Amino acid sequence: MRGSKAAELRRMLEGPGLVRAAGAHNGLTARLVETAGFDAVWASSFEVSASYGLPDASLVTMTQYLAAAESMEAVVDLPVVADCDTGFGGPLNVAHMVRSYRRRGIAAVCFEDKTFPKANSLSDAEHELISVERFVEKIRAAVRAREDGDLVLIARTEALIAGFDIDEALHRGRAYARAGADAVLVHSKDAGPERVLKVAAMWDEPVPLVVVPTTYGHVSEDTLQEAGVRMVIYANQGLRALVGGVSRTLRDLRRHGRADAVDGEIVPVSEIFALQRSPDPEESS
Amino acid sequence: MRGSKAAELRRMLEGPGLVRAAGAHNGLTARLVETAGFDAVWASSFEVSASYGLPDASLVTMTQYLAAAESMEAVVDLPVVADCDTGFGGPLNVAHMVRSYRRRGIAAVCFEDKTFPKANSLSDAEHELISVERFVEKIRAAVRAREDGDLVLIARTEALIAGFDIDEALHRGRAYARAGADAVLVHSKDAGPERVLKVAAMWDEPVPLVVVPTTYGHVSEDTLQEAGVRMVIYANQGLRALVGGVSRTLRDLRRHGRADAVDGEIVPVSEIFALQRSPDPEESS
Amino acid sequence: MRGSKAAELRRMLEGPGLVRAAGAHNGLTARLVETAGFDAVWASSFEVSASYGLPDASLVTMTQYLAAAESMEAVVDLPVVADCDTGFGGPLNVAHMVRSYRRRGIAAVCFEDKTFPKANSLSDAEHELISVERFVEKIRAAVRAREDGDLVLIARTEALIAGFDIDEALHRGRAYARAGADAVLVHSKDAGPERVLKVAAMWDEPVPLVVVPTTYGHVSEDTLQEAGVRMVIYANQGLRALVGGVSRTLRDLRRHGRADAVDGEIVPVSEIFALQRSPDPEESS
Amino acid sequence: MRGSKAAELRRMLEGPGLVRAAGAHNGLTARLVETAGFDAVWASSFEVSASYGLPDASLVTMTQYLAAAESMEAVVDLPVVADCDTGFGGPLNVAHMVRSYRRRGIAAVCFEDKTFPKANSLSDAEHELISVERFVEKIRAAVRAREDGDLVLIARTEALIAGFDIDEALHRGRAYARAGADAVLVHSKDAGPERVLKVAAMWDEPVPLVVVPTTYGHVSEDTLQEAGVRMVIYANQGLRALVGGVSRTLRDLRRHGRADAVDGEIVPVSEIFALQRSPDPEESS
Repeated sequence: MRGSKAAELRRMLEGPGLVRAAGAHNGLTARLVETAGFDAVWASSFEVSASYGLPDASLVTMTQYLAAAESMEAVVDLPVVADCDTGFGGPLNVAHMVRSYRRRGIAAVCFEDKTFPKANSLSDAEHELISVERFVEKIRAAVRAREDGDLVLIARTEALIAGFDIDEALHRGRAYARAGADAVLVHSKDAGPERVLKVAAMWDEPVPLVVVPTTYGHVSEDTLQEAGVRMVIYANQGLRALVGGVSRTLRDLRRHGRADAVDGEIVPVSEIFALQRSPDPEESS
Repeated sequence: MRGSKAAELRRMLEGPGLVRAAGAHNGLTARLVETAGFDAVWASSFEVSASYGLPDASLVTMTQYLAAAESMEAVVDLPVVADCDTGFGGPLNVAHMVRSYRRRGIAAVCFEDKTFPKANSLSDAEHELISVERFVEKIRAAVRAREDGDLVLIARTEALIAGFDIDEALHRGRAYARAGADAVLVHSKDAGPERVLKVAAMWDEPVPLVVVPTTYGHVSEDTLQEAGVRMVIYANQGLRALVGGVSRTLRDLRRHGRADAVDGEIVPVSEIFALQRSPDPEESS
Repeated sequence: MRGSKAAELRRMLEGPGLVRAAGAHNGLTARLVETAGFDAVWASSFEVSASYGLPDASLVTMTQYLAAAESMEAVVDLPVVADCDTGFGGPLNVAHMVRSYRRRGIAAVCFEDKTFPKANSLSDAEHELISVERFVEKIRAAVRAREDGDLVLIARTEALIAGFDIDEALHRGRAYARAGADAVLVHSKDAGPERVLKVAAMWDEPVPLVVVPTTYGHVSEDTLQEAGVRMVIYANQGLRALVGGVSRTLRDLRRHGRADAVDGEIVPVSEIFALQRSPDPEESS
Repeated sequence: MRGSKAAELRRMLEGPGLVRAAGAHNGLTARLVETAGFDAVWASSFEVSASYGLPDASLVTMTQYLAAAESMEAVVDLPVVADCDTGFGGPLNVAHMVRSYRRRGIAAVCFEDKTFPKANSLSDAEHELISVERFVEKIRAAVRAREDGDLVLIARTEALIAGFDIDEALHRGRAYARAGADAVLVHSKDAGPERVLKVAAMWDEPVPLVVVPTTYGHVSEDTLQEAGVRMVIYANQGLRALVGGVSRTLRDLRRHGRADAVDGEIVPVSEIFALQRSPDPEESS
C-alpha cells in the first residue's frame, strides 16, 4: 500500500527545513510543480475557479474542487494540500469535506474563518469573519470526522485581510491550534511582510505556521524561516505565468496565420507526452 | 433565449472567410482563445487529457470531456467544437454523445474513424481504422440522435495518419459526407502540407473541409484557404505555451526562493480577475 | 430542435388544469413518474440527498444536484422542475445556478428563503429565514441571469415552516412575485391544509401558487384546485415506497438464502430493460 | 485510520462461510443492503445504468460508475465490490480503473472478458469474448497498477453467457487465476444451476469462485456452498423491487389525487432520516 502522503507532509512540517508549496489547478500543473522541485502541491481555489473562467466566489462546488485535487493527487508523488475556502458551509459541511478529501488520498485540507459565500482574499470586496467560537466548532467537527485517519488540518485566519490587527490574528490562530488544527495559516495582503513576521515572532503554539507571500513577494524564504515560518505557499504564480504565456502565443498565432510562427514560444509535443503519466507502472519511465 | 451557437458556426462555415479555431482545455484557456480573436474554441481531447496529466488514450471519460467542453461553453461567446475522439464506442455511444453534447449547448462534435481505445494521432503508436461501413453507421446514429436539433457533426478521418494514401482519405471523406456529416476533417501528421492540399484540391463534396496543421505548421492560412479548406484548427499550441511558461516561472520561483523574482514573467492578479466571468450580467464588464 | 420544456410547463401553469408533479432522484425514478401519468418531474433535493445516504443539509453540491436533474431530463419527455434549496449561496450563486440549469435543459428551478446551509423542512431543526430584501435580491439576480432564456423561476417561502403566520407567508409570496418569480411555492408542514388553503384564498398576485402536501396528505387535488392552487407536488412518496419495498426484498433474500424467494415481490428483468431509454431514436420503441 | 475494507473482504473470502453480496446503485440502496444483513455491497453496473434510465451498454462512464461506488463506500461499513464491466477498454484503461477505484477506498473491482462496448449479460444481444491472452494482459495490467495496494481483483468470465461450454469457462477461469486474479466469477444465464455447479465441482485453483444466481434463482446458498462456491451475489433484486414498489405508489397517487392514499405503502419520513448518515461521528446514532 502506498505510504500516506499526509504522514509525509506531517514529517516535513516537523522537520528542520522550510516546506515549499506551489499552486496548481489540475493534474498537469501539479506535475509542473513537482518537476520544478517543490515539496507539496497547493490545490489553489483561486487557480481552480479561474481555470473555470469563474470568479473565486464559492461558485465552483466542493465536487469540482475535490475532482481537481484528486486529479493532482493521481499524477504526482508529492502531497497535495487542498485549499477548501470556508469549508463549504457549517460544521457538518466541514465534516463531509474532511471525509471526502481523506477518502481521495489528499494529504491536507486548509479552511478559513470567512463567511460563506466567500470573496477572493485579494479582491476589493468586504471580508467578513465568522466568530472564533463558530470557527472552532468547525475545526472540532473536522477533527471528529477525521477519526483516526491521517489528514493534516490547516486552519486559516483571514483576520489581517478583514482589517483586524495582529492581536486578533494571534488570538484566532491560538484558538484554532488549541481546537485541534495541525497548522495555522495567517493570510495577509499587506504590501510588506512586517505584520506576518511579527505574528511569526510572537507565535507560541506548538503547531507550524504557514504563509502565502503573494502581495509581499520581496520577502525571502530565509527571512521567513528565521522568523519561524514553517511552510510557504506560492499560491498562484503558475497560473499568472499561464495567462501571460498562452495569451501571447494565441495572439501571435492569430496575427501570423500560420502555426510555425509560434514555434519558438512553445514546447514540442513530445514534452507534453513526457508529462502525461501512465497508470501502468510498466509503461512509466 | 441565446442564439444557437451551432447555427452561428454553420453560418461561418458556409461564409466566404476561413474559420479559425484554437485549442483549449478549460474555461480559462477558452477565454484566452476568445480574447485572442479566434472564431471558435476547439475543446481538444489532447489538451484535456494532458490537463489531467494522463495519456491521450481514452482514459479520460466522456463525462470529463463533456464537463470540460461545458466549462468552456459557459464562459465564452464563441461556439465550442468538441473533439470527441472515436465517439466513445459504437453507434449507441455516439448517439448518447450527440444527445449529451447538444443538451449542454456545445456547437459541434468531431469524431474519428479509429478503433477504441485510441492512441494520440501524433504518437508513435500504431493507428488502426475501423471500416468505412462501421464508421458510416456511427455517423448515421449521430444524425438520428440529433433529431431536429442544431448540432454540427464533423467526421474526421485518420486515414493519412494510419498509413493510407490520399485516395483512401478521399474515399472515406466522401462516404462520411454522404452519410450526413456536416463537415469533414482530414488529419495528417506529415511534415508538409502537400497531401492535405491535394485532398482539398480534389474535394468535391458540398460540405466544408477542416484541417489541423500541427506538424506542417509552415503552411499559411492563405494557402489553405486557396486550396479550398474552410476551417483551420490550431489544436494544441496554447497548451504547449502553457507548459513552457509555467515551468519556467515555477523553476525560477524555486531557485530564487522569493515571489518577486518572477514578477516580470507573470500577469498581475487583476488580469486574472478580469478574465473571470461573472454569471450575473449586472456584474459583468 | 426539441420544443422548450420550460415553455411547455409555463403553458400548463397558465392552463385550466391542476399541474401534478411527483418527486424523483435519478433518471429511472423520473421514468416511473412519467409512466405513472404525472405532468412534471420534481427533482427533489430531499430525494437526491437521501439517494446519497446523506442528510438533506447542503452537503450534496450543486454539481451533484444538477447531474441528477440532467439525468432525469435526458430520459423523460416531461419538464423537470429542480428543487434548488437556497440557491446554493447568495445572489451570485443563484445567477450561476440559473445559467447552469438552463444550459442543461431543465424547465424550472425552485429556490427558498432559508439560510445556507439548510436543514430539511420536515426535520425538527430550527429554520431561519433570510430577510425579504435579501431574497428579493436573489430573485432579481435569477431574472437577470436568465436573460432572454426560457426557464421558469419558482420562489419558495418557508415562512410557515419557520414559525411565521399566514400574513408573513403572503407578504413574502407577494414580494417574490413582484420581484419576478414566475410562481410561488408556499411550503407547510402543518398537520392540516387549513393555512395553505387560506393563503391560496387570499392570493392576489398574477402568478401561480404551488403546494407540497406531504404532512397534510388528506387534502384532495379538487380541494386544492378550488382554493386556487395551480400546481401540486408529491415530493417524496416515491422514495418512501422505494425504501419500504427494497428493504423488504433484501431482508427476504437474506433470510431465505435463495433468489427465487423474492420472485413474487419484484419485476422481471425485462421490465427494467423496457425502462432503459436508448439514445438512438431507431432503437427506441 | 479505518481498517482496509479490501483486507476485510479478503479475510471473508478465505474464511469458512459463504460471502453474501447484494446489488445497489447509490448510497441509499447500499445502506439498505447493509441493514438487511449482507456481507458486501455489489455496485452493480446494471443497477447503476438502469438508475440513469440508460441501457447497460457502456454508455454510463467510469466517472459515473466510480462516483456511484464511492457514494456507497461513503455511507456503509461493508466492503463495496464494484462491477466494472469490461474494465472500460484495454489494459491501460484497466490500470487506470484499478488506481482510480483503489484511491476511493473501494474494496474490490470485477471485470469481464467481453468486448467493449458491452451488452448486458441477460439481454438477447450477441455476446463476444476477447481472447484469453488479451484478457490475461488486462489482469496483469491490473496487478501491476495495484502495486502494493490492497484491492481485491475479481476476473469474470462470460464464457457460459457467450455460448461456450464448461471446459471453456474452466479454461478461462484457470488462466485468469494464474494471471493474478484474487477471485473468479463464472457468470451464467442458464435456467438451472447445473453448469455452474459442475464448474464449481471441477474448480481446482486456489482462488475463490463467485456466482450470480439471477436466472437460476431456485438454487440455495447451501447447495452453492457445498459445491465449493465462496461468494454469491444477488445482483439486481433490490432494483427490481424498487421498480415494482415505486411504480405502484406513483400510480396510486396519480389515481387517487391525494397523498394519504398511499400512506399504507410507504415508510414515514423519519425512516428516511434514520438512513441518512451524518458525516460527523458526534451526530451519528
